[in-house]
Amino acid sequence: MAKKKDQSKNNSSKKIPSGKLIGSKVLVSDEKEANTLYQKSFFGEMKAGGKLNLSLIEALYLLEKEKLDIIQGKKKIKFEELMDKAVQEDPLAYVQYVTYDDLRERGYIVKTGFKFGAHFRIYNRGDIPGEAHSSCMVHCLPENFQMSLTDISRIVRLGHSVKKKMWIAAVDNEGDLTYYEVKRIKP
Amino acid sequence: MAKKKDQSKNNSSKKIPSGKLIGSKVLVSDEKEANTLYQKSFFGEMKAGGKLNLSLIEALYLLEKEKLDIIQGKKKIKFEELMDKAVQEDPLAYVQYVTYDDLRERGYIVKTGFKFGAHFRIYNRGDIPGEAHSSCMVHCLPENFQMSLTDISRIVRLGHSVKKKMWIAAVDNEGDLTYYEVKRIKP
Amino acid sequence: MAKKKDQSKNNSSKKIPSGKLIGSKVLVSDEKEANTLYQKSFFGEMKAGGKLNLSLIEALYLLEKEKLDIIQGKKKIKFEELMDKAVQEDPLAYVQYVTYDDLRERGYIVKTGFKFGAHFRIYNRGDIPGEAHSSCMVHCLPENFQMSLTDISRIVRLGHSVKKKMWIAAVDNEGDLTYYEVKRIKP
Amino acid sequence: MAKKKDQSKNNSSKKIPSGKLIGSKVLVSDEKEANTLYQKSFFGEMKAGGKLNLSLIEALYLLEKEKLDIIQGKKKIKFEELMDKAVQEDPLAYVQYVTYDDLRERGYIVKTGFKFGAHFRIYNRGDIPGEAHSSCMVHCLPENFQMSLTDISRIVRLGHSVKKKMWIAAVDNEGDLTYYEVKRIKP
Repeated sequence: MAKKKDQSKNNSSKKIPSGKLIGSKVLVSDEKEANTLYQKSFFGEMKAGGKLNLSLIEALYLLEKEKLDIIQGKKKIKFEELMDKAVQEDPLAYVQYVTYDDLRERGYIVKTGFKFGAHFRIYNRGDIPGEAHSSCMVHCLPENFQMSLTDISRIVRLGHSVKKKMWIAAVDNEGDLTYYEVKRIKP
Repeated sequence: MAKKKDQSKNNSSKKIPSGKLIGSKVLVSDEKEANTLYQKSFFGEMKAGGKLNLSLIEALYLLEKEKLDIIQGKKKIKFEELMDKAVQEDPLAYVQYVTYDDLRERGYIVKTGFKFGAHFRIYNRGDIPGEAHSSCMVHCLPENFQMSLTDISRIVRLGHSVKKKMWIAAVDNEGDLTYYEVKRIKP
Repeated sequence: MAKKKDQSKNNSSKKIPSGKLIGSKVLVSDEKEANTLYQKSFFGEMKAGGKLNLSLIEALYLLEKEKLDIIQGKKKIKFEELMDKAVQEDPLAYVQYVTYDDLRERGYIVKTGFKFGAHFRIYNRGDIPGEAHSSCMVHCLPENFQMSLTDISRIVRLGHSVKKKMWIAAVDNEGDLTYYEVKRIKP
Repeated sequence: MAKKKDQSKNNSSKKIPSGKLIGSKVLVSDEKEANTLYQKSFFGEMKAGGKLNLSLIEALYLLEKEKLDIIQGKKKIKFEELMDKAVQEDPLAYVQYVTYDDLRERGYIVKTGFKFGAHFRIYNRGDIPGEAHSSCMVHCLPENFQMSLTDISRIVRLGHSVKKKMWIAAVDNEGDLTYYEVKRIKP
């Protein structure tokens, strides 16, 4: 299958976009490449001057899908090296990557949920960031994660206050995902 | 206010059913009294010979609502004494009682959820135990309860396998209830 | 000083209210005693039949201030025993007690903040639960508590959505308290 | 768009100031150019002989805004190259740059906060360094930053001791900024 990929790349003679690892960001400076990544699937954030700002999670996803080369110093960084770096910064990075990958593969536009105190926010299929509100907040947690009922109350209440669904993406020790929706009800 | 209640009871001259505390059960032996409790609202379980078997939680509810006298040895047991006993057997008994009371007052038929690994099962309004399946499993937890995602996975899985909704009844430190529905979703 | 307290109690011949430890609650069944505790300072929650429901934190406070005797089985429970029990249920119980005590001594009415995903909610001085909204949510944390910026984002956002101030009560290893207010600003 | 900028520059025939990258500083040696940068907006620090000393963050900002050419060896350094260098020295450099840019664009005079243990200090609008005290310390942190309450205590204490506000600039994975003010309070 790896071969097949190579062939298709050779056939189409496509050059994939390239970004530079800067701290915990990947910057795509070529305006055309930046547009390709942003306009199609809303990866990253467009900055002044047509530069595209990708988070490590987004960069990991694009790197693994062979849609982006990432340059550190003078050479291309490998997926494992970048994952290493991401996990050193945030112990939950792997769990977030697995969830991001899964949601993207399901066709969702996935963006950071920081302002809502969540890992990600996602949009209903067909909705576009900037034109529609996101519909759902996603919290990514490993299977052994301990929490109190007060923690659950907090994230549910928050989802309620912004009228978004609240999902927990549980990543088990084999990297398999289960999604839970938690909502407050009136019996 | 307690006085007033006594008077009104004297006026109407109603005699309330009476049960005997036997281990962690309350047994109502008078067949007519047993039927009154069971047929109306499906309290307890009818046993051979027309005897009614009540759980401690059911007994506490009926005792507090003055619908049942409970005899231990030769004398009537008080609510606090019975609660004491229930809590010694199960530290979550109080939380279960608060939830049972709330669901009953909302008009639900509430039965034990033991076979489903839950505290309670409840029926859709209008549905009757024995004729319809219960629709929902209820787990009762105090606000400071600590759990892992594995705990949540287990209870959701159980609900899923029997096609029942899974509710968490969170009892806060003021005894107020918040209900959460947790379900597995396919994004 | 203990002597002095005893004398003053003897002089005024006051009998202090008494509650029963039931699971992780303390129940004050005497309606007059319940009213004394509730009407003056809004300790606990009044339940049907004039019973007062106190949380372990409230009970610890009243016990330590010699305003409540707490009965477990047949004998009075000591402060240390009750604290032991509380901490076994919730590792943050001590930190919550220290904060509760401090806020009460400053004259605040302090109630659970569970529904807002916080430990406590407090009322502006002069405001009364049921008549006014609480003004502030309090999160109680030990000095070594680790959190991510996303956690802070979540609690600030939540406070914002319910128009309440968000305080962090930091309890250091000597049991001393420092309060921080965190709010979102527009520079 | 880049083309358009070039044309307008060509039309007005403005020559922009030029600095030399020396270690982790940029030195503007032309006194007139140095004055232009310093007097207008207080970029950098005036040194003996009318030379201006710019930090990497300041230099990055001026470079991106096309208000400064930066020479390394014999040729102009590009934004990405300079950012690379900055991040190698300080992993938080990108987050600091994003914050610096945002605060400058809002009209604040932003200077290093090093002496106060912060990333930046800023002045009330209308206040001028040297004539007025700065009013606020800014700590720049990425969304996944992990910290303990002790970290928060330290930065708040520092702000308190110099009577300055303490802000956290949280940079999320999209490079969007949220500002939090944290202050010690006496309840």
